[in-house]
Amino acid sequence: MRMYDLIMKKRNGRALSKDEIDYIISEYTRDNLPDYQMSALAMAIYFRGMTPEETANLTMAMARSGDMMDLASIKGIKVDKHSTGGVADTTTLVLAPMVAACGAPVAKMSGRGLGHTGGTIDKLESIPGMRLELTEEEFIDKVNKCGLAIMGQTKNLTPADKKLYALRDVTATVDSIPLIASSVMSKKIAAGADGIVLDVKVGRGAFMKDIESAKELARLMVDIGASVGRKTVAHITNMDQPLGLAIGNSLEIIEAIDVLKGRGSKDLLEVCMALGADMLKIAGVAGDDEEAKALLKDALDSGRALQRFRDFIKSQGGDERVVDDISLLPRAKFVEQWVADRNIYIRDLMALDLGLVAMRLGAGREKKEDRIDFSVGIMLGGKVGDMIKKGKPIATIYANDKSKMEWAAGEIKKYILLSDEPVSRPTLIYMRLSQ
Amino acid sequence: MRMYDLIMKKRNGRALSKDEIDYIISEYTRDNLPDYQMSALAMAIYFRGMTPEETANLTMAMARSGDMMDLASIKGIKVDKHSTGGVADTTTLVLAPMVAACGAPVAKMSGRGLGHTGGTIDKLESIPGMRLELTEEEFIDKVNKCGLAIMGQTKNLTPADKKLYALRDVTATVDSIPLIASSVMSKKIAAGADGIVLDVKVGRGAFMKDIESAKELARLMVDIGASVGRKTVAHITNMDQPLGLAIGNSLEIIEAIDVLKGRGSKDLLEVCMALGADMLKIAGVAGDDEEAKALLKDALDSGRALQRFRDFIKSQGGDERVVDDISLLPRAKFVEQWVADRNIYIRDLMALDLGLVAMRLGAGREKKEDRIDFSVGIMLGGKVGDMIKKGKPIATIYANDKSKMEWAAGEIKKYILLSDEPVSRPTLIYMRLSQ
Repeated sequence: MRMYDLIMKKRNGRALSKDEIDYIISEYTRDNLPDYQMSALAMAIYFRGMTPEETANLTMAMARSGDMMDLASIKGIKVDKHSTGGVADTTTLVLAPMVAACGAPVAKMSGRGLGHTGGTIDKLESIPGMRLELTEEEFIDKVNKCGLAIMGQTKNLTPADKKLYALRDVTATVDSIPLIASSVMSKKIAAGADGIVLDVKVGRGAFMKDIESAKELARLMVDIGASVGRKTVAHITNMDQPLGLAIGNSLEIIEAIDVLKGRGSKDLLEVCMALGADMLKIAGVAGDDEEAKALLKDALDSGRALQRFRDFIKSQGGDERVVDDISLLPRAKFVEQWVADRNIYIRDLMALDLGLVAMRLGAGREKKEDRIDFSVGIMLGGKVGDMIKKGKPIATIYANDKSKMEWAAGEIKKYILLSDEPVSRPTLIYMRLSQ
Repeated sequence: MRMYDLIMKKRNGRALSKDEIDYIISEYTRDNLPDYQMSALAMAIYFRGMTPEETANLTMAMARSGDMMDLASIKGIKVDKHSTGGVADTTTLVLAPMVAACGAPVAKMSGRGLGHTGGTIDKLESIPGMRLELTEEEFIDKVNKCGLAIMGQTKNLTPADKKLYALRDVTATVDSIPLIASSVMSKKIAAGADGIVLDVKVGRGAFMKDIESAKELARLMVDIGASVGRKTVAHITNMDQPLGLAIGNSLEIIEAIDVLKGRGSKDLLEVCMALGADMLKIAGVAGDDEEAKALLKDALDSGRALQRFRDFIKSQGGDERVVDDISLLPRAKFVEQWVADRNIYIRDLMALDLGLVAMRLGAGREKKEDRIDFSVGIMLGGKVGDMIKKGKPIATIYANDKSKMEWAAGEIKKYILLSDEPVSRPTLIYMRLSQ
């Protein structure tokens, strides 16, 4: 087999066989194929696409390129959740303790943030003491004891995907739907998931800009899951505006605690209920949607979900007192409010731009090697359609640098648009796709 | 300017500006751009194409990436000729002395062969003593004294094209018409041509397999020539069957001498007359086709073209006695004829396959680093439509290895097809394109 012939085959619009894909991925992982051939192939895939079968084969080849997490010693059906990335998307931090509190084990590997999107691992690191690099044994042990553990990706998880993603990132071949789908699914499968619930974001703050593309990606991932024996469900949700109200790491921890306490962003909770219901159903804990949602609601109302969040923090070495005293979290030196001078409606919240402002305040990474400032970010006063009462904050900026604060205060006025007339609330969850 | 953005721009189907192309080529030449970005761009160009303006800008950027030959000290208009590569294509060796004998200076840089196609420099190297690596001064001096010089490409001629071609060769991005056109034209322009006559081969033994593609390539090269101030004419000629009768280096020298002596392949001579007429017209030596062809015929008939070939060999250190005594050329140890057992017509000669048989006998290179055996090859008894009389050779094989000889003797019978019925002669020159 020669890589040249395989590039030519794909370039000419023909499908690669399983053996051919296995060859490419195993040789590329072992540094036996040069990047210049791989990038030419990626560009050919961008133009020619891949069949569902090719995409499933690529997914499994990448999943098997490194360590496969073996979660067999955790009792129950392990359901993972993945979001394609958004702004103020604190879903995992709310969802994981809720689902765990209902009796479904949550063994979750999460990523770090890049660009305008945040990462669960970064957010959790803002809790003092929190350990997120665990060995496989520690990880399994903690899930068995606490029902919930979250860790960063191990170094040798899907090395082929890591290498290919880094190459796509510099060769303008990221936004290929089969390549995105296989990247996401390979990581979930290597991380040991029996079932997968996907949150495919669509809109200005998401990779997928229109519903048709989001649907194509979601359908492809659900089908990959089916073809490799992982029950998979996808929800397509709105990322035109931020999901929650908090953008920034410790701010999002605060928001998660708020939601677990029965207050905070309704939209965030609604997405958590939808995703959580599917997790419980796949895990076999609930028979249908109604039962699942009742269980989740009870876990919240009873305080069991909040308690599970405390237990989880403690189990991973963090200071669980943050749940009751948010002043223990990193705090920004400067806080500035943009206050409503009259009762006014929020007409638009531009997700991508607000995410980028938070990133430049220090809440995110422009480049992989950038360091994060956990305390900074933006707290929104409401979502599109909400009315902000006179004297209340439209948004609050948290910064550790006076000049960045001034810059951000000017910027957000371009991306938070107001109206004196009432504004209707946009659709939050567009659709659900299952096998 | 960022390469990432330029790949994305091309990928999305937009045209690159002159500045953007200049940036890419100058950075790539200086090893400041990684191959993996360049190959992704090449694949995007394969799918999206380039406008004529982009192609002309790429041509000039590559031409200027290294040394530009300055032929100003040679009197007259210097017209170069280029063939896109074929089998038994000995045109340059016949054409150059004919044109020089008519008074147009011929200062020609030529290439080496690869795959099934031969190269002029390899062929000339089969003449004992021949020097083909000349300094610019020697080259100009020899053209001024002899009216004709041929040399290999200097090391620093179009380094961007060399680097890009090598990359395209391993990333399945060779057969992109704008990339082929800019590669050819950049070399001719850097080599100092005032005018260019192109022989675009089409058919089974050529890069271009169909007339439409050949026409597109020819039109694009003629237009590039026009837009950069080089008078350019292209002929599209048949490469379904070999052009001449000889395939192999010293065999092709023998054929060139034959044609210059007024015998040998009529097709080869016809193509030389067509290309030569355009060279004389561009050089200003002849006013029209009729005059040009009369001059060329007289140069042949009078023996002046043959004498110019002798002078040229001597001028570059070669043994000019080969013209009168071909036994001074390298000779193969084994010679085997395939003899006609009855009067029979040649129905088909499969150019690519016959070229590959000759290559494997040692006449060509499979890889760049392979060494050539000058003496081996195939001499055809005729062209499609010719009748081979009983007892005459349909083909003669020259080899230095008994087992290769046996293999080749079997192979050529698959690629030389015969008929008892008369066969019509295929079209030789399909069309001529000019500005």
